[in-house]
Amino acid sequence: MAAAARLALRGRPQSTPNPSVGAIIVKHGRVIARGWTQAGGRPHAEAMALEAAGARAQGATLYVTLEPCAHCSERGPACADLIAASGLARVVVGLGDPDPRTAGEGMARIRQAGIAAEALDHTPSRASLAGYLLRRTQDRPHVTLKLATSLDGQIALADGTSRWITGEAARAHVHSRRALADAILVGGGTWRADNPRLDVRLAGLEDRSPERWVLTRGSPPEGARAIASPAGTTAIDGALYLYVEGGAQTAAAFLAADLVDRLELYRAPIVIGAGRAAISDIGLTDLAAAHGRWACVERRQLGEDMFEAYARRR
Amino acid sequence: MAAAARLALRGRPQSTPNPSVGAIIVKHGRVIARGWTQAGGRPHAEAMALEAAGARAQGATLYVTLEPCAHCSERGPACADLIAASGLARVVVGLGDPDPRTAGEGMARIRQAGIAAEALDHTPSRASLAGYLLRRTQDRPHVTLKLATSLDGQIALADGTSRWITGEAARAHVHSRRALADAILVGGGTWRADNPRLDVRLAGLEDRSPERWVLTRGSPPEGARAIASPAGTTAIDGALYLYVEGGAQTAAAFLAADLVDRLELYRAPIVIGAGRAAISDIGLTDLAAAHGRWACVERRQLGEDMFEAYARRR
Repeated sequence: MAAAARLALRGRPQSTPNPSVGAIIVKHGRVIARGWTQAGGRPHAEAMALEAAGARAQGATLYVTLEPCAHCSERGPACADLIAASGLARVVVGLGDPDPRTAGEGMARIRQAGIAAEALDHTPSRASLAGYLLRRTQDRPHVTLKLATSLDGQIALADGTSRWITGEAARAHVHSRRALADAILVGGGTWRADNPRLDVRLAGLEDRSPERWVLTRGSPPEGARAIASPAGTTAIDGALYLYVEGGAQTAAAFLAADLVDRLELYRAPIVIGAGRAAISDIGLTDLAAAHGRWACVERRQLGEDMFEAYARRR
Repeated sequence: MAAAARLALRGRPQSTPNPSVGAIIVKHGRVIARGWTQAGGRPHAEAMALEAAGARAQGATLYVTLEPCAHCSERGPACADLIAASGLARVVVGLGDPDPRTAGEGMARIRQAGIAAEALDHTPSRASLAGYLLRRTQDRPHVTLKLATSLDGQIALADGTSRWITGEAARAHVHSRRALADAILVGGGTWRADNPRLDVRLAGLEDRSPERWVLTRGSPPEGARAIASPAGTTAIDGALYLYVEGGAQTAAAFLAADLVDRLELYRAPIVIGAGRAAISDIGLTDLAAAHGRWACVERRQLGEDMFEAYARRR
């Protein structure tokens, strides 16, 4: 199941507006087929895996990160029906689907076909579906806030110079993270000051640049769309993953609204001193209240720099 | 030899004003004796190890982090003479001693006794002698700057509240680091604002609190002595290790003077936003010049917090 959750990452974010799901078919202890949600959301992961398995699916076990859909679409049959007709012996599901058209109905239809089916509450599957679950439950995308700082938390010299704090490996990693987002956002001040391209400059991923958004109360600059406040992310149509790149005011606005789900920090082994801090006022008045909110979920060296990811504990 | 360098840490800082040295005697592939510099600087590590080995030293190998001394003292004979009379077959030295009374003379006297002797340039031995080497070559102590910050590099809320950013494990670690210093220093502002105890509150180490110093142009407050600038550390009599605990002005003054040899960062998984930055203006105007100065030499989790140590590349 953990392998299926990793597989799901391959469909992100091209599967949007559908969730990116991973599916693995195992028979006699060996993986015989894999699938993940395709661009635009179809075919689904289960359909891909079943097609790859063909007749070998007979008697096998399917591991899939999300409950198979129970609703037909003009773009294809319901996965629950495909599974019912597949000859599979067993289905293990990472997470039930909150979509009312499927919730519980997918499992029921599989069991009606005489197939053993169980739904877990599998943490890696849940994490791989974060954007979809937030869109379903709160009608907003999953928000990652990225910061690239010195050891002392500065994002630029006092005069605004920020090229470069982090090294090439860290900057390439940022591009790979952009490629996992549906939309990317910076503050109006950063847009005007840096005129950033905010695109993906990695070989083979040039077409994966996310849609550009700016946080501004004014009208959007050319080449971008605008939201006036962090709560406005609901209006970023269908986006499941939003990547926020600053500056300090924008970072603070999202943090103050408690709308950051993941912090991604790149830290260079340099000291800047009195430069520009990464985050402006977030309205914190009680130090105790700042604790218990963030859990480190990833840490790795990127050249000279350190990458750390923190997930908001909710 | 690496084990001898670790052993040397046991004498720090009680050996001051003498360097803390580690010595291990090995015979037939087994450690038969160990020693390290005792409180006040005598007996030396070699004398301790040779006394522990007794007659078993015959034909054995001595590993010692610093060249054995060649000068007699009213407090004991020269280690080179003890070794010459020991029956040892071989001596391996981590680093030659820059003390002109010994430099080369210690090795020569051992060889004259027919004992094979080689001097390495052993990095861990050199690191374990950092305070002694700086006092010998630049007449100043080794300086560690400690910072305890949020993920965004803040040491307090805007109103100065800083209790607590880091957790218990990190704070206990700070006390263990204080116990390795001869002297501890804060800025005048921090002394007045926090009236810090700056002592070692760890069971069994209560008597290891370092001497307290304040960076101030004024007269020293009660309970402390004062230096007016970072260059004044030469006046901290005989100290080999100075531990600087801030605040931001003091951190900046030492960094601007390039008198920080080791940065020790404690980072709590919290976000503060517009609080008080860890480091004030260090006069940096060129981002490229900030690179290449710091190498991460240690990293570990302390409860919820991360500890990182960076050594100044010189």
